[in-house]
Amino acid sequence: MQDITVTIAALTRRIEELEDERAIRTVLSDYALAVDGNNAEAMAQLYAEDCAIDIDSAVFFNGREDAKRIVTGEAHQSILPDCAHIMGPFSIAIDGDRAVATGYATIFVRRDGDVGVWRQAYGRWELVKRDRRWQILCRQSRSTGRVESQSILNAALQKDAGR
Amino acid sequence: MQDITVTIAALTRRIEELEDERAIRTVLSDYALAVDGNNAEAMAQLYAEDCAIDIDSAVFFNGREDAKRIVTGEAHQSILPDCAHIMGPFSIAIDGDRAVATGYATIFVRRDGDVGVWRQAYGRWELVKRDRRWQILCRQSRSTGRVESQSILNAALQKDAGR
Amino acid sequence: MQDITVTIAALTRRIEELEDERAIRTVLSDYALAVDGNNAEAMAQLYAEDCAIDIDSAVFFNGREDAKRIVTGEAHQSILPDCAHIMGPFSIAIDGDRAVATGYATIFVRRDGDVGVWRQAYGRWELVKRDRRWQILCRQSRSTGRVESQSILNAALQKDAGR
Repeated sequence: MQDITVTIAALTRRIEELEDERAIRTVLSDYALAVDGNNAEAMAQLYAEDCAIDIDSAVFFNGREDAKRIVTGEAHQSILPDCAHIMGPFSIAIDGDRAVATGYATIFVRRDGDVGVWRQAYGRWELVKRDRRWQILCRQSRSTGRVESQSILNAALQKDAGR
Repeated sequence: MQDITVTIAALTRRIEELEDERAIRTVLSDYALAVDGNNAEAMAQLYAEDCAIDIDSAVFFNGREDAKRIVTGEAHQSILPDCAHIMGPFSIAIDGDRAVATGYATIFVRRDGDVGVWRQAYGRWELVKRDRRWQILCRQSRSTGRVESQSILNAALQKDAGR
Repeated sequence: MQDITVTIAALTRRIEELEDERAIRTVLSDYALAVDGNNAEAMAQLYAEDCAIDIDSAVFFNGREDAKRIVTGEAHQSILPDCAHIMGPFSIAIDGDRAVATGYATIFVRRDGDVGVWRQAYGRWELVKRDRRWQILCRQSRSTGRVESQSILNAALQKDAGR
Protein backbone atom coordinates (compact mmCIF):
# COMPACT_ATOMS: atom_id res chain seq x y z
CA MET A 1 0.00 0.00 0.00
CA GLN A 2 2.82 2.35 0.93
CA ASP A 3 4.59 1.32 -2.28
CA ILE A 4 1.56 2.19 -4.38
CA THR A 5 1.30 5.61 -2.77
CA VAL A 6 4.95 6.30 -3.58
CA THR A 7 4.49 5.06 -7.15
CA ILE A 8 1.44 7.24 -7.66
CA ALA A 9 3.26 10.29 -6.31
CA ALA A 10 6.10 9.70 -8.78
CA LEU A 11 3.69 9.31 -11.70
CA THR A 12 1.89 12.48 -10.65
CA ARG A 13 5.16 14.43 -10.79
CA ARG A 14 5.83 13.09 -14.30
CA ILE A 15 2.33 14.10 -15.44
CA GLU A 16 2.84 17.54 -13.92
CA GLU A 17 6.05 18.05 -15.87
CA LEU A 18 4.29 17.10 -19.10
CA GLU A 19 1.50 19.54 -18.21
CA ASP A 20 4.08 22.20 -17.42
CA GLU A 21 5.69 21.76 -20.83
CA ARG A 22 2.28 22.01 -22.47
CA ALA A 23 1.45 25.17 -20.51
CA ILE A 24 4.78 26.77 -21.44
CA ARG A 25 4.24 26.03 -25.12
CA THR A 26 0.82 27.65 -24.83
CA VAL A 27 2.34 30.79 -23.27
CA LEU A 28 4.75 31.05 -26.20
CA SER A 29 2.07 30.53 -28.85
CA ASP A 30 -0.39 32.82 -27.02
CA TYR A 31 2.33 35.47 -27.11
CA ALA A 32 2.19 35.39 -30.90
CA LEU A 33 -1.61 35.50 -30.98
CA ALA A 34 -1.58 38.51 -28.64
CA VAL A 35 0.95 40.62 -30.53
CA ASP A 36 -0.58 39.80 -33.92
CA GLY A 37 -4.00 40.42 -32.40
CA ASN A 38 -2.97 43.92 -31.30
CA ASN A 39 -3.83 42.87 -27.77
CA ALA A 40 -1.39 44.58 -25.40
CA GLU A 41 -3.39 43.59 -22.33
CA ALA A 42 -3.39 39.86 -23.09
CA MET A 43 0.29 40.00 -24.03
CA ALA A 44 1.22 41.76 -20.79
CA GLN A 45 -0.51 39.06 -18.73
CA LEU A 46 1.87 36.49 -20.22
CA TYR A 47 4.79 38.36 -18.65
CA ALA A 48 5.60 38.34 -14.94
CA GLU A 49 5.02 41.56 -12.98
CA ASP A 50 8.81 41.99 -12.69
CA CYS A 51 9.78 40.85 -16.19
CA ALA A 52 12.91 41.99 -18.01
CA ILE A 53 13.07 42.02 -21.81
CA ASP A 54 16.23 42.64 -23.81
CA ILE A 55 16.04 42.91 -27.62
CA ASP A 56 19.48 42.88 -29.23
CA SER A 57 21.01 44.63 -26.18
CA ALA A 58 19.42 47.73 -27.65
CA VAL A 59 15.76 47.86 -26.66
CA PHE A 60 14.63 47.10 -23.13
CA PHE A 61 11.31 46.70 -21.36
CA ASN A 62 11.02 46.28 -17.60
CA GLY A 63 7.87 45.19 -15.83
CA ARG A 64 4.48 44.18 -17.14
CA GLU A 65 3.20 47.69 -17.70
CA ASP A 66 6.28 48.75 -19.66
CA ALA A 67 6.08 45.55 -21.72
CA LYS A 68 2.81 46.67 -23.26
CA ARG A 69 4.87 49.04 -25.43
CA ILE A 70 5.95 45.95 -27.39
CA VAL A 71 2.47 46.05 -28.90
CA THR A 72 1.60 49.73 -28.61
CA GLY A 73 4.97 50.99 -29.86
CA GLU A 74 5.46 52.55 -33.25
CA ALA A 75 7.49 49.69 -34.75
CA HIS A 76 4.86 47.08 -34.00
CA GLN A 77 1.90 49.27 -34.93
CA SER A 78 3.54 49.85 -38.31
CA ILE A 79 3.34 46.13 -39.19
CA LEU A 80 -0.25 45.50 -38.03
CA PRO A 81 -2.42 43.87 -39.37
CA ASP A 82 0.09 42.47 -41.82
CA CYS A 83 2.28 40.48 -39.45
CA ALA A 84 2.57 36.90 -38.28
CA HIS A 85 4.90 35.97 -35.43
CA ILE A 86 5.91 32.39 -36.09
CA MET A 87 7.38 31.25 -32.79
CA GLY A 88 9.63 28.25 -32.39
CA PRO A 89 10.43 25.53 -32.39
CA PHE A 90 11.71 25.62 -28.83
CA SER A 91 13.79 23.31 -26.67
CA ILE A 92 12.36 23.58 -23.17
CA ALA A 93 14.21 22.68 -19.97
CA ILE A 94 12.07 22.61 -16.82
CA ASP A 95 13.48 22.67 -13.30
CA GLY A 96 10.72 22.80 -10.72
CA ASP A 97 8.94 26.14 -10.99
CA ARG A 98 11.54 27.53 -13.38
CA ALA A 99 11.98 26.83 -17.08
CA VAL A 100 14.02 28.03 -20.03
CA ALA A 101 12.70 27.86 -23.58
CA THR A 102 15.29 28.39 -26.30
CA GLY A 103 14.36 28.75 -29.94
CA TYR A 104 13.32 30.93 -32.80
CA ALA A 105 11.05 33.79 -33.72
CA THR A 106 10.40 34.54 -37.39
CA ILE A 107 8.26 37.61 -38.02
CA PHE A 108 6.63 37.79 -41.41
CA VAL A 109 5.06 40.94 -42.81
CA ARG A 110 2.85 41.38 -45.86
CA ARG A 111 3.87 44.35 -48.02
CA ASP A 112 2.05 45.20 -51.24
CA GLY A 113 0.65 41.69 -51.30
CA ASP A 114 3.97 39.90 -50.83
CA VAL A 115 4.85 38.20 -47.54
CA GLY A 116 8.50 38.34 -46.47
CA VAL A 117 10.58 38.03 -43.32
CA TRP A 118 10.71 41.28 -41.36
CA ARG A 119 12.83 40.00 -38.49
CA GLN A 120 14.34 36.66 -37.45
CA ALA A 121 15.93 36.02 -34.09
CA TYR A 122 17.15 33.42 -31.63
CA GLY A 123 15.46 33.74 -28.27
CA ARG A 124 15.92 32.69 -24.68
CA TRP A 125 12.74 32.79 -22.62
CA GLU A 126 13.05 32.23 -18.88
CA LEU A 127 9.73 31.42 -17.26
CA VAL A 128 8.55 31.11 -13.69
CA LYS A 129 5.48 29.36 -12.32
CA ARG A 130 3.64 31.67 -9.95
CA ASP A 131 0.04 31.39 -8.76
CA ARG A 132 -0.16 28.10 -10.72
CA ARG A 133 0.52 29.94 -13.98
CA TRP A 134 3.68 30.02 -16.11
CA GLN A 135 4.84 33.59 -16.79
CA ILE A 136 7.72 35.04 -18.78
CA LEU A 137 10.30 36.47 -16.39
CA CYS A 138 13.32 37.22 -18.60
CA ARG A 139 13.52 37.29 -22.36
CA GLN A 140 16.55 37.81 -24.54
CA SER A 141 16.09 38.16 -28.30
CA ARG A 142 19.10 38.17 -30.63
CA SER A 143 18.82 38.79 -34.36
CA THR A 144 20.48 36.27 -36.64
CA GLY A 145 23.60 37.41 -38.47
CA ARG A 146 25.90 37.90 -35.50
CA VAL A 147 28.38 35.35 -34.16
CA GLU A 148 27.64 36.44 -30.59
CA SER A 149 23.96 35.49 -31.03
CA GLN A 150 25.02 31.82 -31.17
CA SER A 151 25.74 31.80 -27.43
CA ILE A 152 22.00 31.76 -26.74
CA LEU A 153 21.69 28.49 -28.65
CA ASN A 154 24.74 26.85 -27.14
CA ALA A 155 23.68 27.68 -23.59
CA ALA A 156 20.57 25.55 -24.14
CA LEU A 157 22.59 22.62 -25.49
CA GLN A 158 24.86 22.60 -22.45
CA LYS A 159 21.81 22.50 -20.20
CA ASP A 160 20.38 19.56 -22.13
CA ALA A 161 23.70 17.70 -21.95
CA GLY A 162 23.65 18.08 -18.18
CA ARG A 163 20.39 16.22 -17.82
CA MET B 1 -8.32 1.93 -1.24
CA GLN B 2 -11.23 4.07 -2.33
CA ASP B 3 -8.93 7.08 -2.23
CA ILE B 4 -6.42 5.40 -4.51
CA THR B 5 -9.11 4.54 -7.04
CA VAL B 6 -10.23 8.15 -7.12
CA THR B 7 -6.65 9.37 -7.44
CA ILE B 8 -5.96 6.99 -10.31
CA ALA B 9 -9.11 8.07 -12.11
CA ALA B 10 -8.02 11.70 -11.86
CA LEU B 11 -4.52 10.90 -13.16
CA THR B 12 -6.03 8.94 -16.03
CA ARG B 13 -8.10 11.95 -17.08
CA ARG B 14 -4.96 14.14 -17.04
CA ILE B 15 -3.07 11.62 -19.17
CA GLU B 16 -6.00 11.46 -21.58
CA GLU B 17 -5.96 15.22 -22.02
CA LEU B 18 -2.23 15.14 -22.79
CA GLU B 19 -2.86 12.35 -25.28
CA ASP B 20 -5.72 14.36 -26.78
CA GLU B 21 -3.43 17.35 -27.29
CA ARG B 22 -0.84 15.11 -28.92
CA ALA B 23 -3.46 13.57 -31.21
CA ILE B 24 -4.77 17.00 -32.23
CA ARG B 25 -1.26 18.21 -33.06
CA THR B 26 -0.82 15.11 -35.21
CA VAL B 27 -4.06 15.83 -37.09
CA LEU B 28 -2.78 19.33 -37.87
CA SER B 29 0.66 18.17 -39.00
CA ASP B 30 -0.81 15.25 -40.94
CA TYR B 31 -2.99 17.78 -42.74
CA ALA B 32 0.15 19.41 -44.12
CA LEU B 33 1.70 16.08 -45.11
CA ALA B 34 -1.50 15.13 -46.95
CA VAL B 35 -1.93 18.32 -48.95
CA ASP B 36 1.78 18.53 -49.83
CA GLY B 37 1.68 14.80 -50.62
CA ASN B 38 -1.16 15.34 -53.12
CA ASN B 39 -3.20 12.89 -51.06
CA ALA B 40 -6.83 14.02 -51.17
CA GLU B 41 -8.05 10.78 -49.60
CA ALA B 42 -5.81 10.99 -46.51
CA MET B 43 -6.62 14.70 -46.15
CA ALA B 44 -10.36 14.09 -46.32
CA GLN B 45 -10.16 11.50 -43.52
CA LEU B 46 -8.80 14.21 -41.21
CA TYR B 47 -12.07 16.13 -41.63
CA ALA B 48 -15.36 15.10 -40.07
CA GLU B 49 -18.10 13.82 -42.36
CA ASP B 50 -20.06 17.04 -41.76
CA CYS B 51 -17.13 19.47 -41.81
CA ALA B 52 -17.45 23.14 -42.79
CA ILE B 53 -14.47 25.05 -44.18
CA ASP B 54 -14.40 28.78 -44.76
CA ILE B 55 -11.38 30.40 -46.46
CA ASP B 56 -11.46 34.20 -46.23
CA SER B 57 -15.28 34.20 -46.32
CA ALA B 58 -14.82 33.59 -50.04
CA VAL B 59 -14.18 29.90 -50.61
CA PHE B 60 -16.24 27.22 -48.88
CA PHE B 61 -16.15 23.44 -48.63
CA ASN B 62 -18.88 21.43 -46.93
CA GLY B 63 -18.55 17.78 -46.04
CA ARG B 64 -15.67 15.35 -46.39
CA GLU B 65 -16.25 14.59 -50.06
CA ASP B 66 -16.37 18.26 -51.01
CA ALA B 67 -13.23 18.94 -48.94
CA LYS B 68 -11.18 16.79 -51.29
CA ARG B 69 -11.29 19.70 -53.74
CA ILE B 70 -8.81 21.48 -51.44
CA VAL B 71 -6.22 19.11 -52.89
CA THR B 72 -7.69 18.32 -56.29
CA GLY B 73 -8.62 21.91 -57.13
CA GLU B 74 -6.76 23.99 -59.68
CA ALA B 75 -5.12 26.38 -57.19
CA HIS B 76 -3.53 23.61 -55.16
CA GLN B 77 -2.54 21.50 -58.15
CA SER B 78 -0.73 24.54 -59.55
CA ILE B 79 1.67 24.66 -56.58
CA LEU B 80 2.47 20.92 -56.39
CA PRO B 81 5.14 19.55 -55.94
CA ASP B 82 6.70 22.88 -55.00
CA CYS B 83 4.77 23.64 -51.82
CA ALA B 84 5.29 23.24 -48.10
CA HIS B 85 2.45 23.95 -45.68
CA ILE B 86 4.12 25.03 -42.47
CA MET B 87 1.37 24.74 -39.88
CA GLY B 88 1.45 26.43 -36.50
CA PRO B 89 2.29 27.04 -33.88
CA PHE B 90 -1.13 26.53 -32.34
CA SER B 91 -2.70 27.28 -28.98
CA ILE B 92 -5.06 24.41 -28.25
CA ALA B 93 -7.97 24.52 -25.84
CA ILE B 94 -9.62 21.16 -25.10
CA ASP B 95 -13.05 20.78 -23.54
CA GLY B 96 -14.07 17.14 -23.34
CA ASP B 97 -14.56 15.79 -26.84
CA ARG B 98 -14.32 19.27 -28.39
CA ALA B 99 -11.21 21.34 -29.03
CA VAL B 100 -10.19 24.56 -30.73
CA ALA B 101 -6.72 25.04 -32.18
CA THR B 102 -5.81 28.61 -33.08
CA GLY B 103 -2.67 29.49 -34.96
CA TYR B 104 -0.90 29.99 -38.24
CA ALA B 105 -0.48 28.50 -41.68
CA THR B 106 2.40 29.66 -43.86
CA ILE B 107 2.44 28.16 -47.33
CA PHE B 108 5.75 28.31 -49.13
CA VAL B 109 6.14 27.68 -52.85
CA ARG B 110 9.30 27.15 -54.89
CA ARG B 111 9.33 29.15 -58.12
CA ASP B 112 12.31 29.09 -60.49
CA GLY B 113 14.43 27.73 -57.66
CA ASP B 114 13.49 30.40 -55.13
CA VAL B 115 11.22 29.60 -52.18
CA GLY B 116 8.82 32.33 -51.07
CA VAL B 117 5.58 32.70 -49.15
CA TRP B 118 2.54 32.01 -51.31
CA ARG B 119 -0.07 32.51 -48.60
CA GLN B 120 -0.05 33.24 -44.88
CA ALA B 121 -3.12 33.06 -42.68
CA TYR B 122 -4.46 32.91 -39.16
CA GLY B 123 -6.62 29.86 -38.59
CA ARG B 124 -9.25 28.57 -36.20
CA TRP B 125 -9.66 24.80 -36.26
CA GLU B 126 -12.54 23.32 -34.30
CA LEU B 127 -12.15 19.61 -33.73
CA VAL B 128 -14.41 16.90 -32.41
CA LYS B 129 -13.52 13.46 -31.04
CA ARG B 130 -15.68 10.81 -32.66
CA ASP B 131 -15.06 7.08 -32.81
CA ARG B 132 -12.00 7.68 -30.62
CA ARG B 133 -10.43 9.87 -33.31
CA TRP B 134 -10.03 13.66 -33.44
CA GLN B 135 -11.50 15.12 -36.63
CA ILE B 136 -11.70 18.65 -38.01
CA LEU B 137 -15.30 19.88 -37.81
CA CYS B 138 -15.05 23.61 -38.61
CA ARG B 139 -12.14 25.52 -40.03
CA GLN B 140 -11.84 29.24 -40.60
CA SER B 141 -8.79 30.60 -42.41
CA ARG B 142 -8.13 34.34 -42.61
CA SER B 143 -5.28 35.86 -44.62
CA THR B 144 -3.02 38.28 -42.81
CA GLY B 145 -3.30 41.91 -43.79
CA ARG B 146 -6.85 42.60 -42.60
CA VAL B 147 -7.82 44.07 -39.25
CA GLU B 148 -10.86 41.80 -39.07
CA SER B 149 -8.59 38.73 -39.23
CA GLN B 150 -7.33 39.60 -35.74
CA SER B 151 -10.62 38.50 -34.18
CA ILE B 152 -9.63 34.87 -34.74
CA LEU B 153 -6.55 35.37 -32.57
CA ASN B 154 -8.29 37.32 -29.83
CA ALA B 155 -11.07 34.75 -29.51
CA ALA B 156 -8.44 32.17 -28.51
CA LEU B 157 -6.90 34.48 -25.92
CA GLN B 158 -10.27 35.07 -24.26
CA LYS B 159 -10.81 31.33 -24.04
CA ASP B 160 -7.41 30.84 -22.44
CA ALA B 161 -8.08 33.60 -19.95
CA GLY B 162 -11.24 31.82 -18.91
CA ARG B 163 -9.43 28.69 -17.81
CA MET C 1 -4.82 -4.80 -5.34
CA GLN C 2 -3.66 -6.80 -8.34
CA ASP C 3 -6.00 -4.74 -10.48
CA ILE C 4 -4.48 -1.51 -9.25
CA THR C 5 -0.98 -2.74 -10.05
CA VAL C 6 -2.05 -3.58 -13.59
CA THR C 7 -3.78 -0.22 -13.98
CA ILE C 8 -0.73 1.65 -12.75
CA ALA C 9 1.54 -0.26 -15.13
CA ALA C 10 -0.71 0.70 -18.05
CA LEU C 11 -0.74 4.37 -17.02
CA THR C 12 3.04 4.30 -16.67
CA ARG C 13 3.40 3.09 -20.26
CA ARG C 14 1.15 5.89 -21.47
CA ILE C 15 3.19 8.47 -19.56
CA GLU C 16 6.39 7.00 -20.99
CA GLU C 17 5.07 7.37 -24.53
CA LEU C 18 4.21 11.02 -23.89
CA GLU C 19 7.70 11.52 -22.44
CA ASP C 20 9.20 9.76 -25.47
CA GLU C 21 7.37 12.12 -27.81
CA ARG C 22 8.60 15.09 -25.81
CA ALA C 23 12.19 13.79 -25.87
CA ILE C 24 12.04 13.23 -29.63
CA ARG C 25 10.76 16.77 -30.23
CA THR C 26 13.65 18.04 -28.13
CA VAL C 27 16.17 16.08 -30.22
CA LEU C 28 14.75 17.68 -33.36
CA SER C 29 14.77 21.22 -31.95
CA ASP C 30 18.21 20.72 -30.37
CA TYR C 31 19.43 19.71 -33.82
CA ALA C 32 18.56 23.18 -35.07
CA LEU C 33 20.18 24.90 -32.09
CA ALA C 34 23.37 22.89 -32.65
CA VAL C 35 23.77 23.55 -36.36
CA ASP C 36 22.87 27.25 -36.02
CA GLY C 37 25.18 27.40 -32.97
CA ASN C 38 28.11 26.08 -35.05
CA ASN C 39 28.32 23.23 -32.55
CA ALA C 40 29.41 20.09 -34.43
CA GLU C 41 30.05 18.16 -31.22
CA ALA C 42 26.57 18.72 -29.76
CA MET C 43 24.98 17.98 -33.14
CA ALA C 44 26.90 14.72 -33.51
CA GLN C 45 25.70 13.52 -30.11
CA LEU C 46 22.11 13.75 -31.37
CA TYR C 47 22.94 11.12 -34.00
CA ALA C 48 23.46 7.43 -33.27
CA GLU C 49 26.99 6.04 -33.59
CA ASP C 50 25.89 4.13 -36.73
CA CYS C 51 23.69 6.83 -38.26
CA ALA C 52 23.00 7.13 -41.99
CA ILE C 53 22.07 10.50 -43.53
CA ASP C 54 20.89 10.95 -47.10
CA ILE C 55 20.32 14.45 -48.51
CA ASP C 56 18.53 14.41 -51.85
CA SER C 57 20.15 11.07 -52.77
CA ALA C 58 23.22 13.18 -53.48
CA VAL C 59 25.03 13.90 -50.22
CA PHE C 60 25.63 11.17 -47.64
CA PHE C 61 27.04 11.02 -44.13
CA ASN C 62 27.65 7.74 -42.33
CA GLY C 63 28.41 7.48 -38.63
CA ARG C 64 28.55 10.10 -35.91
CA GLU C 65 32.07 11.28 -36.72
CA ASP C 66 31.31 11.74 -40.40
CA ALA C 67 28.08 13.57 -39.52
CA LYS C 68 30.06 16.41 -37.98
CA ARG C 69 30.81 17.55 -41.54
CA ILE C 70 27.17 18.74 -41.71
CA VAL C 71 28.34 21.61 -39.52
CA THR C 72 32.01 21.87 -40.41
CA GLY C 73 31.49 21.56 -44.17
CA GLU C 74 31.87 24.46 -46.54
CA ALA C 75 28.18 24.84 -47.40
CA HIS C 76 27.10 25.21 -43.79
CA GLN C 77 30.02 27.42 -42.77
CA SER C 78 29.09 29.76 -45.61
CA ILE C 79 25.68 30.50 -44.07
CA LEU C 80 26.83 31.00 -40.46
CA PRO C 81 25.97 33.10 -38.44
CA ASP C 82 23.14 34.16 -40.73
CA CYS C 83 21.05 31.02 -40.67
CA ALA C 84 18.03 29.71 -38.81
CA HIS C 85 16.91 26.11 -39.21
CA ILE C 86 13.18 26.14 -38.60
CA MET C 87 12.35 22.48 -38.01
CA GLY C 88 8.88 21.04 -38.28
CA PRO C 89 6.17 20.60 -37.67
CA PHE C 90 6.52 16.83 -37.42
CA SER C 91 4.12 13.91 -37.22
CA ILE C 92 5.74 11.39 -34.91
CA ALA C 93 4.93 7.68 -34.79
CA ILE C 94 6.47 5.77 -31.86
CA ASP C 95 6.76 1.99 -31.73
CA GLY C 96 8.59 0.87 -28.60
CA ASP C 97 12.22 2.02 -28.82
CA ARG C 98 11.85 3.08 -32.45
CA ALA C 99 10.19 6.18 -33.85
CA VAL C 100 9.74 8.00 -37.14
CA ALA C 101 9.30 11.76 -37.31
CA THR C 102 8.09 13.11 -40.65
CA GLY C 103 7.96 16.79 -41.40
CA TYR C 104 9.65 19.89 -42.66
CA ALA C 105 12.90 21.82 -42.50
CA THR C 106 12.98 25.42 -43.69
CA ILE C 107 16.41 27.01 -43.62
CA PHE C 108 16.45 30.79 -43.65
CA VAL C 109 19.56 32.85 -44.38
CA ARG C 110 20.15 36.56 -43.95
CA ARG C 111 21.86 38.16 -46.93
CA ASP C 112 22.60 41.88 -47.05
CA GLY C 113 20.05 42.40 -44.30
CA ASP C 114 17.24 40.49 -45.99
CA VAL C 115 16.14 37.10 -44.69
CA GLY C 116 15.03 34.55 -47.28
CA VAL C 117 14.63 30.80 -47.65
CA TRP C 118 17.91 29.08 -48.53
CA ARG C 119 16.55 25.54 -48.59
CA GLN C 120 13.24 23.84 -47.86
CA ALA C 121 12.80 20.10 -47.60
CA TYR C 122 10.57 17.28 -46.47
CA GLY C 123 12.31 14.99 -44.01
CA ARG C 124 12.01 11.51 -42.56
CA TRP C 125 13.87 11.05 -39.28
CA GLU C 126 14.10 7.53 -37.89
CA LEU C 127 15.10 7.49 -34.24
CA VAL C 128 16.14 4.77 -31.83
CA LYS C 129 16.15 4.80 -28.03
CA ARG C 130 19.50 3.57 -26.74
CA ASP C 131 20.98 4.05 -23.27
CA ARG C 132 17.71 5.79 -22.31
CA ARG C 133 18.30 8.48 -24.92
CA TRP C 134 16.59 9.03 -28.29
CA GLN C 135 19.12 9.24 -31.12
CA ILE C 136 18.78 9.85 -34.86
CA LEU C 137 19.53 6.63 -36.72
CA CYS C 138 18.47 7.33 -40.32
CA ARG C 139 17.60 10.63 -41.89
CA GLN C 140 16.32 11.30 -45.38
CA SER C 141 15.95 14.88 -46.58
CA ARG C 142 14.22 15.68 -49.87
CA SER C 143 14.01 19.18 -51.32
CA THR C 144 10.59 20.42 -52.32
CA GLY C 145 9.92 20.77 -56.03
CA ARG C 146 10.09 17.10 -57.02
CA VAL C 147 7.13 14.74 -57.31
CA GLU C 148 9.21 11.88 -55.90
CA SER C 149 9.76 13.83 -52.68
CA GLN C 150 6.06 13.38 -51.88
CA SER C 151 6.61 9.70 -51.06
CA ILE C 152 8.25 10.72 -47.77
CA LEU C 153 5.04 12.46 -46.72
CA ASN C 154 2.69 9.71 -47.85
CA ALA C 155 4.68 7.01 -46.05
CA ALA C 156 3.93 8.78 -42.77
CA LEU C 157 0.22 9.01 -43.53
CA GLN C 158 -0.02 5.29 -44.22
CA LYS C 159 1.66 4.58 -40.90
CA ASP C 160 -0.80 6.82 -39.09
CA ALA C 161 -3.75 5.15 -40.80
CA GLY C 162 -2.48 1.79 -39.60
CA ARG C 163 -2.64 2.72 -35.98
